Amino acid sequence: MDLELREALYLQAKEWVLEAGKTIREKINDPLTIDTKSDPNDLVTTMDKGTEYFLITNIKETYPEHFIISEEGYGDELQSLDGTVWIIDPIDGTMNFVHQKRNFAISVGIYHDGVGEIGLIYDVMADQLYSAKRGGGAYKNKTALPRLSEQKSFYESILGLNHFWLCENRLVDEKVIQNLVKTIRGSRTYGSAALEFASVAEGIMDGYMTMDLAPWDIAAGIVIVDEVGGRTTNAFGEQINLLQKNSVLTCNPAIQEQLINDYTKKGRK
Amino acid sequence: MDLELREALYLQAKEWVLEAGKTIREKINDPLTIDTKSDPNDLVTTMDKGTEYFLITNIKETYPEHFIISEEGYGDELQSLDGTVWIIDPIDGTMNFVHQKRNFAISVGIYHDGVGEIGLIYDVMADQLYSAKRGGGAYKNKTALPRLSEQKSFYESILGLNHFWLCENRLVDEKVIQNLVKTIRGSRTYGSAALEFASVAEGIMDGYMTMDLAPWDIAAGIVIVDEVGGRTTNAFGEQINLLQKNSVLTCNPAIQEQLINDYTKKGRK
Repeated sequence: MDLELREALYLQAKEWVLEAGKTIREKINDPLTIDTKSDPNDLVTTMDKGTEYFLITNIKETYPEHFIISEEGYGDELQSLDGTVWIIDPIDGTMNFVHQKRNFAISVGIYHDGVGEIGLIYDVMADQLYSAKRGGGAYKNKTALPRLSEQKSFYESILGLNHFWLCENRLVDEKVIQNLVKTIRGSRTYGSAALEFASVAEGIMDGYMTMDLAPWDIAAGIVIVDEVGGRTTNAFGEQINLLQKNSVLTCNPAIQEQLINDYTKKGRK
Repeated sequence: MDLELREALYLQAKEWVLEAGKTIREKINDPLTIDTKSDPNDLVTTMDKGTEYFLITNIKETYPEHFIISEEGYGDELQSLDGTVWIIDPIDGTMNFVHQKRNFAISVGIYHDGVGEIGLIYDVMADQLYSAKRGGGAYKNKTALPRLSEQKSFYESILGLNHFWLCENRLVDEKVIQNLVKTIRGSRTYGSAALEFASVAEGIMDGYMTMDLAPWDIAAGIVIVDEVGGRTTNAFGEQINLLQKNSVLTCNPAIQEQLINDYTKKGRK
């Protein structure tokens, strides 16, 4: 992608994301209409839909030749990542949004011919923007994020993972993951994939592993984690396909091999 | 406890806690000396010790007749809660402090003849003080926290619990807890007992359950959760003893009975 064009795109996307976040903050105490989607705990609100509508309307008007993959259904049905594709989650962490009124994010990844060029994760209530351009480093607001330490000890690492990994599941023997959480230093669950990617990029968690995420949950995060030297694959070290759901492991490269070889692959079903 | 005396005590304690927090913020990027205690992941830093020393020196000088129970060893060895007892964790969530430089708290509970009179939990980096006086309601900074909703549905609740509950453990059959996390709406792990109590008081989590906490982890939280109508017991609904370690369940009263009867007691070992 042309670098001048990318810079313009970055500035425009950032402006929209910040504006959408400001609107959410202003309306955070308004009454919510909450629906459920595939299961009773898969929530969607008028705010998810309104935020997506705002972003997509602007994109379609300004960049009619771009494509959009998004959570709430205003995007395109794509069979490939050819061209420029915006991958959008208007509110990542909707359960946190509904129950906590914080700890959720707007996530926007922009890919060109399948390559992640721009990532924006906006922690709306904390007013903190994680951003990256391919080859240009990652930032938290205006502060550059350092590259992840290659000295990280597996035994002193903190991983983000939800509690279902420790219950019987279709991917990995739960006993192996139970062993994992007893081996590492600590485990956390925050309830927003985008913010967990941001935490890995910031080095405050060393990895984040999840069973089943959509492209919009991870597209921005992948670009941001890449820029600090982190690695993102599926839970078994294989390449992510952004046209479908994937298991996901994003982590400091220093712990990736051990995590995959000794745990997820070892316990793979 | 005399109300006028208590008010003075509250103002004094609050001043010290805010001052200690300010010092931590100023030194947050200083190099740390990290030791470990009972196990390699039970961390203690010069900052834990310095903060405790600051608080205890002030208390002993101003209130020589008061007693102190505290984490890092500058307190008293008490056999009873008679008199006025300060129960202090200088940094609750030391692992977060070390790895994340946020998501930790100063926790101070003041008890008189065994009754919780004052609770202060200070989220240092967010500069948010949760506080309560017995019978006087609970606050987040200057905003009164509403009483917890009695309409909370068990199935729509969010619980804080660490991942060890889902591994084989000495207290409860892990299969029962695995069933619990599949039944409720969501589960979270933040890594600071004090802040998880604060989240329950604020109603952004509906309960928090943990296997083995010391008095200083919970003394302030109990007072604050009490003041919004929440309940704190051990994991099986029995009274907490603040002179020893306990399992802990603090929660919205609307979900307490079902949580204990159908899960922790049912799976009790």
